[in-house]
Amino acid sequence: MINWILVDEIIKNGLREDINNIDITTDTLIDDENISKAYMVAKEDGVIAGLPIIKRVFEALDKEVNVIFKVNEGAKVKSGAKIVEIEGRTKTILKGERLALNILQRMSGIASLSRKYIEKVKEYNTRIVDTRKTTPGLRILEKYAVRIGGAHNHRYNLSDAVMIKDNHIKACGGIKEAIQRVKERIPHTVKIEVEVEDIKGLNEAIEGGADIVMLDNMNVMQMEDAVKKAEGRVILEASGGITLNTVIDVAKTGVDVISVGALTHSVKAMDISLNFY
Amino acid sequence: MINWILVDEIIKNGLREDINNIDITTDTLIDDENISKAYMVAKEDGVIAGLPIIKRVFEALDKEVNVIFKVNEGAKVKSGAKIVEIEGRTKTILKGERLALNILQRMSGIASLSRKYIEKVKEYNTRIVDTRKTTPGLRILEKYAVRIGGAHNHRYNLSDAVMIKDNHIKACGGIKEAIQRVKERIPHTVKIEVEVEDIKGLNEAIEGGADIVMLDNMNVMQMEDAVKKAEGRVILEASGGITLNTVIDVAKTGVDVISVGALTHSVKAMDISLNFY
Amino acid sequence: MINWILVDEIIKNGLREDINNIDITTDTLIDDENISKAYMVAKEDGVIAGLPIIKRVFEALDKEVNVIFKVNEGAKVKSGAKIVEIEGRTKTILKGERLALNILQRMSGIASLSRKYIEKVKEYNTRIVDTRKTTPGLRILEKYAVRIGGAHNHRYNLSDAVMIKDNHIKACGGIKEAIQRVKERIPHTVKIEVEVEDIKGLNEAIEGGADIVMLDNMNVMQMEDAVKKAEGRVILEASGGITLNTVIDVAKTGVDVISVGALTHSVKAMDISLNFY
Amino acid sequence: MINWILVDEIIKNGLREDINNIDITTDTLIDDENISKAYMVAKEDGVIAGLPIIKRVFEALDKEVNVIFKVNEGAKVKSGAKIVEIEGRTKTILKGERLALNILQRMSGIASLSRKYIEKVKEYNTRIVDTRKTTPGLRILEKYAVRIGGAHNHRYNLSDAVMIKDNHIKACGGIKEAIQRVKERIPHTVKIEVEVEDIKGLNEAIEGGADIVMLDNMNVMQMEDAVKKAEGRVILEASGGITLNTVIDVAKTGVDVISVGALTHSVKAMDISLNFY
Amino acid sequence: MINWILVDEIIKNGLREDINNIDITTDTLIDDENISKAYMVAKEDGVIAGLPIIKRVFEALDKEVNVIFKVNEGAKVKSGAKIVEIEGRTKTILKGERLALNILQRMSGIASLSRKYIEKVKEYNTRIVDTRKTTPGLRILEKYAVRIGGAHNHRYNLSDAVMIKDNHIKACGGIKEAIQRVKERIPHTVKIEVEVEDIKGLNEAIEGGADIVMLDNMNVMQMEDAVKKAEGRVILEASGGITLNTVIDVAKTGVDVISVGALTHSVKAMDISLNFY
Amino acid sequence: MINWILVDEIIKNGLREDINNIDITTDTLIDDENISKAYMVAKEDGVIAGLPIIKRVFEALDKEVNVIFKVNEGAKVKSGAKIVEIEGRTKTILKGERLALNILQRMSGIASLSRKYIEKVKEYNTRIVDTRKTTPGLRILEKYAVRIGGAHNHRYNLSDAVMIKDNHIKACGGIKEAIQRVKERIPHTVKIEVEVEDIKGLNEAIEGGADIVMLDNMNVMQMEDAVKKAEGRVILEASGGITLNTVIDVAKTGVDVISVGALTHSVKAMDISLNFY
Repeated sequence: MINWILVDEIIKNGLREDINNIDITTDTLIDDENISKAYMVAKEDGVIAGLPIIKRVFEALDKEVNVIFKVNEGAKVKSGAKIVEIEGRTKTILKGERLALNILQRMSGIASLSRKYIEKVKEYNTRIVDTRKTTPGLRILEKYAVRIGGAHNHRYNLSDAVMIKDNHIKACGGIKEAIQRVKERIPHTVKIEVEVEDIKGLNEAIEGGADIVMLDNMNVMQMEDAVKKAEGRVILEASGGITLNTVIDVAKTGVDVISVGALTHSVKAMDISLNFY
Repeated sequence: MINWILVDEIIKNGLREDINNIDITTDTLIDDENISKAYMVAKEDGVIAGLPIIKRVFEALDKEVNVIFKVNEGAKVKSGAKIVEIEGRTKTILKGERLALNILQRMSGIASLSRKYIEKVKEYNTRIVDTRKTTPGLRILEKYAVRIGGAHNHRYNLSDAVMIKDNHIKACGGIKEAIQRVKERIPHTVKIEVEVEDIKGLNEAIEGGADIVMLDNMNVMQMEDAVKKAEGRVILEASGGITLNTVIDVAKTGVDVISVGALTHSVKAMDISLNFY
Repeated sequence: MINWILVDEIIKNGLREDINNIDITTDTLIDDENISKAYMVAKEDGVIAGLPIIKRVFEALDKEVNVIFKVNEGAKVKSGAKIVEIEGRTKTILKGERLALNILQRMSGIASLSRKYIEKVKEYNTRIVDTRKTTPGLRILEKYAVRIGGAHNHRYNLSDAVMIKDNHIKACGGIKEAIQRVKERIPHTVKIEVEVEDIKGLNEAIEGGADIVMLDNMNVMQMEDAVKKAEGRVILEASGGITLNTVIDVAKTGVDVISVGALTHSVKAMDISLNFY
Repeated sequence: MINWILVDEIIKNGLREDINNIDITTDTLIDDENISKAYMVAKEDGVIAGLPIIKRVFEALDKEVNVIFKVNEGAKVKSGAKIVEIEGRTKTILKGERLALNILQRMSGIASLSRKYIEKVKEYNTRIVDTRKTTPGLRILEKYAVRIGGAHNHRYNLSDAVMIKDNHIKACGGIKEAIQRVKERIPHTVKIEVEVEDIKGLNEAIEGGADIVMLDNMNVMQMEDAVKKAEGRVILEASGGITLNTVIDVAKTGVDVISVGALTHSVKAMDISLNFY
Repeated sequence: MINWILVDEIIKNGLREDINNIDITTDTLIDDENISKAYMVAKEDGVIAGLPIIKRVFEALDKEVNVIFKVNEGAKVKSGAKIVEIEGRTKTILKGERLALNILQRMSGIASLSRKYIEKVKEYNTRIVDTRKTTPGLRILEKYAVRIGGAHNHRYNLSDAVMIKDNHIKACGGIKEAIQRVKERIPHTVKIEVEVEDIKGLNEAIEGGADIVMLDNMNVMQMEDAVKKAEGRVILEASGGITLNTVIDVAKTGVDVISVGALTHSVKAMDISLNFY
Repeated sequence: MINWILVDEIIKNGLREDINNIDITTDTLIDDENISKAYMVAKEDGVIAGLPIIKRVFEALDKEVNVIFKVNEGAKVKSGAKIVEIEGRTKTILKGERLALNILQRMSGIASLSRKYIEKVKEYNTRIVDTRKTTPGLRILEKYAVRIGGAHNHRYNLSDAVMIKDNHIKACGGIKEAIQRVKERIPHTVKIEVEVEDIKGLNEAIEGGADIVMLDNMNVMQMEDAVKKAEGRVILEASGGITLNTVIDVAKTGVDVISVGALTHSVKAMDISLNFY
């Protein structure tokens, strides 16, 4: 499921950044032959994401290390749950510890938050999606963690779907003109999303042939109105400052998709620590 | 102040990740010659960090863009404050927008939180420092943001200071033995920090010749005791779950340094947005 | 329009490959100060694509070179037409010549062939598109050349649209099951294309909710039937061994899109040469 | 025989280009454990080149895949011949398919065309060689494919042999002066080739001490004359627009080497497809 | 002990530089299946450093090669001693030979010279350290070789210790001012070294709170004086043109550390050659 | 003359290695606006090589720096000669100083030694050449420095000339067989050198058609004999342990080329230092 061509670069950069030329403590004090067994343990409840990646972190340092998953990727764990066991050279464990935890904590933080949103709206036919507000260089891991948490991804980058915003519309003279121009030029495999601020914009987007309409910073009443007007002709996406507190009300409006930047841009790392037996 | 050799790579990776082959919306709808003026504005109070980096983001796309700082790096701004103005090709602004915001919001989030800690302890002679709990690949930016916020850095990586922990001590037969072994081997330019859990450990570390002693997860009374016992012979660093609520009490104990992982590992991005005039 | 982050890497690799440590002839025989003026000239009729890239090739060697376009990108030129003039150090021109020509000839070959297909079907409401049968490492340039030639792109890579083939269908138990499974998981911004071999498959794909159906290696009569059956509910794409000779007949069937692997996989380089004045 | 340091980079770039973050179809629909067996089959007659490289493509994705060659590298196969079998995860086969085919088809196209030229001149003591008109970034594979086809390579890059052309001669005041200047400076391990347009140039090149003389765009009669005049004192290379139709006549003139840009610059990919059992 | 993330890049670059596209001799003359056994032998006395790295060189070319160490890393060997045996494909041995020898000879040259300095001062309580006068790109290997030789490292780079020199002092208005400014800003984990030219400077540095004072180009009498004045309050480092002839006299002064640029900047490669059995 | 595509990578790696995240002294103590003027001065006699490269080092840090050459590349300077002046930000000068000196000292050391060899043999018609015994990663700079010193290069890498050694000969059954096999396969642009140990080998190599014969570790009498026997039919290269003391005697034998590994493998850095005005 993971494209290692990209992720191995992240791991290599991470190790280079954290070790540079030497782990001056461990390389000085611990013998190469010294073997240990350690484990990672959850210090709070959450959803675990990133297990295959941290396994790869330790293996990048030392092919002979053994990383055993004690829970499944995506498992909801309680504080105290053992997550992985790592058996191998003490040096390898100590050198990989920080990067592995930084990755696992961040990804599990994202998955845990995604799961919370999902659970809030589970009675509604609404999808929670992420945004491009990800950490530079880590998008592949963060969008993966969102999926592990049970939410969905929005577009991955500026190449893979059209998103027509205010400035694009201004430059073309109107929503319909913008959609028209895009339609003539983009691959037939690419969808068109238009960001609108009112019902008038919604109507134009629908008439112009948009696939998705983003209701930008509308209030709940406006959204309800939009759902009615759209009559299922486009996918409706609610966007703008939606929180765990407000997400149910938004879901109730009947929008198809709710995008939540906070899933990735303000992540509280899940508390996980590594102990030696 | 910024090592562009490293930071330019972060920017290049970030742009590659976000654009891939084309910005299918902007490259289809906006003419190359179309010029705009935009600005970034704070949507909440905070401390700004990352201005030179976002300038470099836009310049990486287009040398002819003009990025003007409206506040100084490290400035404490109010919600509504204009932060930068960007003048140039509309395409350049739209393509760089997301990466620039992702960087500025994250770095300003770190600087803002650092400032809050600093202000809590300003009456005490205590330094707030970060940890290695940074985002993989972005440590150079995150540690810089901590400094811009007014806090200090702990060691940058595993190469540049010794940190003797439990497992190192076990492997050597004791704190003194570990310090001794390290001292014989490391450069004379490198300091030695020892992590201890009690006063006995502190005493051994001091006698062994440690430069710094980390008081790991001690409570306030234990720390006070440690400060007394140390008599200024080592730098004392408090560590472990210290929050904005507890940091004053820790500072009052007289420890020299308080390390706070949350400065970087669980950052709430500062709310900043880009608007066109 | 061009993402230089990616294209500059192609240019750097190309120059490194062609020069390695030294241009042993030119660096030995030509003085640094020696200035020349050269031009590229078409040796056959065709459509020019790649001008901004070859300008960048010479500039990568020497910022002081001056590359002047004598025709527009996408221009249809006659044999004998002057395409660009290059003025600068003789060394720069001689060192960049081969890579610049290799790029311009190949891209113009693609654009010229694309134009031929376009002209064949111009009376029909059918789009000619490329495939992923591109040269490894040069897809960004080749898909750009297709657009310059007037044709359209199919999906760029495996990330940006779903293409359900035989093996995917087998693994899921049927077309509808496969579409259903995909729909639940992929971003709402991504389209679904299904490859079918007969009308039965087409019906299932339409009922399952596909956005696009690829008619794989159907003959003209089958395609006509498919167009009738589809009634405009999906985009129909004809695919499989379609040539300049057969493309009109396929267009006449009323399919929306015709994909042609030959646009990129078997390109005859356009004959262009560089001469010094 | 293959320098994997360079070729692995080509493969990594190719996979990154084609997959980016995810194979959204395959990663959604196919289970990791799903195992398949597929084969590649020739859809036309030709010479196969690139087998070790496509094996490496699949292995770059998944070390547990098994790629078995059914013909030898360089084998001349008939349409319908099975070329390789691939056994392993269905995901691996589907993700590597396009890149592997793009490489194998292109390299086999080059080898097949090279073989055709070779067969044309087999009764003559003439060598067919390639040029530097290769695809940027793929020269190592394309020159290898030429050799597999039975033809020979010309110089690899601008470093490894001298090629004195018109402009070099002008800048030095004459052929002899240019050769003289080069001889004094280049390594004693490097040969000197001079491009001439007439017998006068040939004579000067021979007298100056050239190792190889390229007869640029001469007609057959001029070449015969050149062969007589040269009397075996230099290697004679015919160059310029030589095709499968004209190559025999050129070979009959007695030139030692015939260089053919078309071997690499306008390759028709050999038709090969991948099927699952 | 070796950070392969960095060292593997050195090896990859080295092989790419030495082989480029092909080993035209070996790849033409030797069969893939041809197996040989070779060994490296010391042609002069010295201290061996670099064994794990040259093993990795051959393995980078061919995982099936077998490299057996006949002496330990850091061993002092006599001329004629067998150092390693290499068993595997003849091609692999011939292709890796030059890079492996270039590395082993250079590293062993450094280790051998370091050992000579160490032996000179072994009766004194003085440490011999290297400098940043290393070969660009190879610092990790050269500083490692210094340690293998028995000497110590100075700081690794400009990040990991402060070194206040003349120009820094001028810019701040004095030694104490410079130390003060640094102390307020740098991590508490970083030491401060000050370069002084006389006893006045030494006093100021000590009073300002320097950790280390470098006595720059002082003569032996000045150093003796400095040792007396310092009274053990700082680490004293002698620096500037110290040779094997003068190092004892410097050690006798009682300085703690002697830094010797020649350890890495003017290395005589140890004479080692590779022979086939 | 310099291929910046390759050399810029060397510079970038060198700066990254030496600075890592920050120059903790300079970035803390020196203001961005602080401007200085410094110069490099020779501390011993020698030949200067590397001026364009060190200019590029400072420019890589800061485009606004001004580096003025006070002597020409290749100039023979006396101790005390001013070599370059650098004017610009004090920070830039201090950060680039070490890398610039490491490069200039090493390259000038190579050029100076090369010049010494050249001067020894100037009355003879013999060429002094380098070998592949260069520092991994720096071959392009070291071979350039050899040329600046007035000596010549041997082959650059394993791709660009054939060198048949013992093991190749054994594998083919004889010198002639080896040459024959190579001749049939390599480009017509590549020369063949054969390493021989006696006159018998020389004769076989000449008869086989070698271009160059390396006389491996022969004594002066053997070389004289070889020169006589060869009668100018091949280029004769003397190799093996030739020093400044023995080089004249070797030159007197009449060999065409003398290769000297010491030119690059055991370089004494030329003593050069940087001072501020």
